[in-house]
Amino acid sequence: MIKEINSVDNINIKSIAKLHQKKYRDAENKFICSGFNIVEEAIDNKYDMECVVLREDLRKHEIFEKIMAQNIDVFLVSREVMKKISDTENTQGIMAVFKKPNNLPKFSERKRLTVVDRIQDPGNLGTIIRSAAAAGFSAVIIVKGTVDVYSPKVVRAAAGTIFRMPIVFMDSAECVSQYLKEQGCKLFVTKVDSGISYYDADFKADMAIVIGNEGNGVSDEMTGMADEFLNIPMSADVESLNAGIAASILMFEAARQNS
Amino acid sequence: MIKEINSVDNINIKSIAKLHQKKYRDAENKFICSGFNIVEEAIDNKYDMECVVLREDLRKHEIFEKIMAQNIDVFLVSREVMKKISDTENTQGIMAVFKKPNNLPKFSERKRLTVVDRIQDPGNLGTIIRSAAAAGFSAVIIVKGTVDVYSPKVVRAAAGTIFRMPIVFMDSAECVSQYLKEQGCKLFVTKVDSGISYYDADFKADMAIVIGNEGNGVSDEMTGMADEFLNIPMSADVESLNAGIAASILMFEAARQNS
Repeated sequence: MIKEINSVDNINIKSIAKLHQKKYRDAENKFICSGFNIVEEAIDNKYDMECVVLREDLRKHEIFEKIMAQNIDVFLVSREVMKKISDTENTQGIMAVFKKPNNLPKFSERKRLTVVDRIQDPGNLGTIIRSAAAAGFSAVIIVKGTVDVYSPKVVRAAAGTIFRMPIVFMDSAECVSQYLKEQGCKLFVTKVDSGISYYDADFKADMAIVIGNEGNGVSDEMTGMADEFLNIPMSADVESLNAGIAASILMFEAARQNS
Repeated sequence: MIKEINSVDNINIKSIAKLHQKKYRDAENKFICSGFNIVEEAIDNKYDMECVVLREDLRKHEIFEKIMAQNIDVFLVSREVMKKISDTENTQGIMAVFKKPNNLPKFSERKRLTVVDRIQDPGNLGTIIRSAAAAGFSAVIIVKGTVDVYSPKVVRAAAGTIFRMPIVFMDSAECVSQYLKEQGCKLFVTKVDSGISYYDADFKADMAIVIGNEGNGVSDEMTGMADEFLNIPMSADVESLNAGIAASILMFEAARQNS
């Protein structure tokens, strides 16, 4: 169904705008993301899309036909309406509402898990999910206190992998530890100036790597449950790496060892 | 010298605010960055700081004494003035003006260079500089068309390494190629689905790695000058990695091989 909307007070627009808030995303089990890339990818990969909002002057854009071929609502809106619901300053004039995916971890060969322990920056979380998917990891475990996986900035940084990567939510370090024990996964925790160099670790068995909060690192509770400590050797005058970078270096070392 | 400023029209404030624009940063050879961390690090490491702007209610903060012990101008400003000159929405109430550093590459042992070919995202560029410093690289070469190294977002993402990492600016791929030949560095270029796996490459000799633009990759000109092509093997259903992540994986593989 196609519908033209010019009022920011329209009921559909208002309910889409609400999805900027986590509580509405949780209640509705939906999320939003803007951009041509993500809508194209969603169509190509048959992600569960509920509706597309398109700025009316983009009616002539080639994507319009592609969207119209889907069995979903399409809202053609004014520039003003687009601005109201957009999550970026530089809106591309296209946004979609998605149903949250529910992918369960598939453990066909190796179990390789990334545990995200209260990462706060949406860009970092999105990048970690993207890298985990690229490095062939089985799932990403999100510990309570981490930024919302379905916030628009995370979804954008994850570059489409949010729809494919199994995400498991856990309430505490204890739950994580128990789950990993059940799965027979060794728990690796990074620690500055302690443990072994990450490239000397054995990532060939079933395993999980924990990535800690940007400012405070991995929680004491989680650290206490570690099977082995790792560090990434680096120049003495550099304090630390970006959390997404550190995570990716470790995950791709695991991929290298298993290649 | 300490000065209280309550007007957004003050001449000092106006000239600081201008440093949000590249043309003024270039003309003045200065840049700005906000946040407690960077000011503390600047003091501890004796970076060339011209002045500090502090929100007046932070006069009781412990950093105030530390700043006052420096031989620099300190501007105590109102909330409104701080907001005008700040580069983030969530200003911490502290900002500093720095002189651009001029660190020349030091080639004591190995020559290891990162070439940044028109990266557009400030966070990516800052992260690449941070990772290059951490991985013990000798210098970062910035090709014309790359986002300004001294924009506040790049400086923040580089987390202090901008003051230490040698940065070399070059006008074209040809200049880069000539410089690398003079230095005897092998030029590695990443290429999807082509070349050798990065972990099979020999990063023990003098070398340079090129990181291309987020959307378009490495330029054709630069690609034509490559000595060897690399790829980062990844899951078939993932198209690419974030540029900062790809760069860091390669740089840390070089660090690993040279450890």
